[in-house]
Amino acid sequence: MAMRCKRCRGTAVMEVRRHNAAFCRDCFLHYVGQQVTRAIAKYRMAGHTDRVLVAVSGGKDSLALWDLLLELGYQADGLYLSLGIGAYSERSKAVCQEFAEARGATLLVHDLAGEHGYTIPEAAGKGGRSSCGVCGLSKRYVFNRAALDGGYDVVCTGHNLDDEAAVLFGNTLRWDTAAMARQFPVLEATRPGLVKKVKPLYRVAERETAAYCVLKGIDYVVEECPLVAGNTQMRHKETLNQMEEAAPGTKHSFLFGYLDRAAALLKVADDADLTECARCGMTTQAPEDPASEAVCAFCRSKARLVKTLPIVEVASR
Amino acid sequence: MAMRCKRCRGTAVMEVRRHNAAFCRDCFLHYVGQQVTRAIAKYRMAGHTDRVLVAVSGGKDSLALWDLLLELGYQADGLYLSLGIGAYSERSKAVCQEFAEARGATLLVHDLAGEHGYTIPEAAGKGGRSSCGVCGLSKRYVFNRAALDGGYDVVCTGHNLDDEAAVLFGNTLRWDTAAMARQFPVLEATRPGLVKKVKPLYRVAERETAAYCVLKGIDYVVEECPLVAGNTQMRHKETLNQMEEAAPGTKHSFLFGYLDRAAALLKVADDADLTECARCGMTTQAPEDPASEAVCAFCRSKARLVKTLPIVEVASR
Repeated sequence: MAMRCKRCRGTAVMEVRRHNAAFCRDCFLHYVGQQVTRAIAKYRMAGHTDRVLVAVSGGKDSLALWDLLLELGYQADGLYLSLGIGAYSERSKAVCQEFAEARGATLLVHDLAGEHGYTIPEAAGKGGRSSCGVCGLSKRYVFNRAALDGGYDVVCTGHNLDDEAAVLFGNTLRWDTAAMARQFPVLEATRPGLVKKVKPLYRVAERETAAYCVLKGIDYVVEECPLVAGNTQMRHKETLNQMEEAAPGTKHSFLFGYLDRAAALLKVADDADLTECARCGMTTQAPEDPASEAVCAFCRSKARLVKTLPIVEVASR
Repeated sequence: MAMRCKRCRGTAVMEVRRHNAAFCRDCFLHYVGQQVTRAIAKYRMAGHTDRVLVAVSGGKDSLALWDLLLELGYQADGLYLSLGIGAYSERSKAVCQEFAEARGATLLVHDLAGEHGYTIPEAAGKGGRSSCGVCGLSKRYVFNRAALDGGYDVVCTGHNLDDEAAVLFGNTLRWDTAAMARQFPVLEATRPGLVKKVKPLYRVAERETAAYCVLKGIDYVVEECPLVAGNTQMRHKETLNQMEEAAPGTKHSFLFGYLDRAAALLKVADDADLTECARCGMTTQAPEDPASEAVCAFCRSKARLVKTLPIVEVASR
């Protein structure tokens, strides 16, 4: 028997087990939009007069997010950061550019090698960080700085329910309470050098952003980053998928239970003092010893990479 | 190549991967004793002048615990509660009695059917609790009451590292912060009707208590309780075992990270007011509405069971 759409009773094309629901194409797109609207409203993520910068990778999540924000009437520009991961990065950039062109939207393109002198494959394993570690650090830095330079009010990232549940799961397995305290759908700009960061897709599952793209005909890069295979977060996602299979709603109640009942209790664990990096001026944690110089993790990482790589001198930005 | 004992360099018989160690028979028994000594010292679980009551089921954990406590010189009597689970309960009781006799130790035997009018198989599913739910409730009640009646200072249970990690895992997946706040290796007797409860095996893994019994020739009931198959905690244990396989130490760092860094932050979530049960006089949570009668969960459950079971009238204790 064909499943019926929960909203219009038409033939359903997509099941959402954790909500005990199924939807036809149009009602599914409506449902996803509703989840994003709810997320934005609940945490006051952005208003329609805000200038919004969406960090896009070319994958399903960030392109679905950009599409949704444009559909919902936000002033949303895209930001693509080229990580120098060979053909993968080239194809990702092209997909983002095509998306922007088709909608007459603005896409900022940054380039890690051109601006900072290294690519992720070159940096991986050097200076004590895995490729995912140095990639995350570089993205956080470039996104914040590009938003500051461009006068944007808020940076949106495409982290979905599965991403957020997996990161929380990893942090909880170690009870890294400081990292847990910082994991929230919205991070306010608590000082001048920081831009507000929000995750409007935190209510939407990974397979739902994929379905959104397919149903809307959005071309996206399907393959995972070639450097990511076997990393810890992927393993946590598999574990959570198994549990979700046995008990639909596991990810949802894990993430939402945390946000609703535990996050506030853990907030006291995040007591980081912030200051300006002595090298680049961006915001960083104040050193424990007040006599020592504050240098942000990005500048420290870059300095270590300079020693190991034939780094090209780049114009200071 | 044969593994070497970490302590004496003899031939190892048991590997403990999370500690990157292997031990010969004698050094393994020493290691387990050390973990229990450390647990008792860290949380001041019991002194040598205390009268200790060990809740024994006939399984590896509780018999290893009783054996260890006797070896370490504690005044430890056993308490067996017959749950009425057919041949399983009969065999369990016999194993406990043989253990006690061989050591000249005192075993108290209680009987759920004789004292309270129901067995676990009869109660399962009736009155809204699963067999594991009503079993846990009954044990907590009988253990506490038997310890009070017998003038014991502390009740020890055989919860091991795997048990504690699995319970914490389940509570954390739902962020049941009140239940999390109460999960600790020691629960102090905060009022007269409560006996102190401690878990001296929380540092020892399940396979280590099994190995302890095998190496010491302790006869124990190997089969799981026939009612437990497929319950949620078993599923959580399997998930944790998979993660432990991929990353040894996962359970340890999950449980210990919680105890060391998060438990204190969550304690504020446990704000239960305690009072006396109007029916049995034992300690229970005060009702939210101060005008309503305080009846403990055990008495409420028993009252519901009376309605559904041909319950035998038993002498009030």
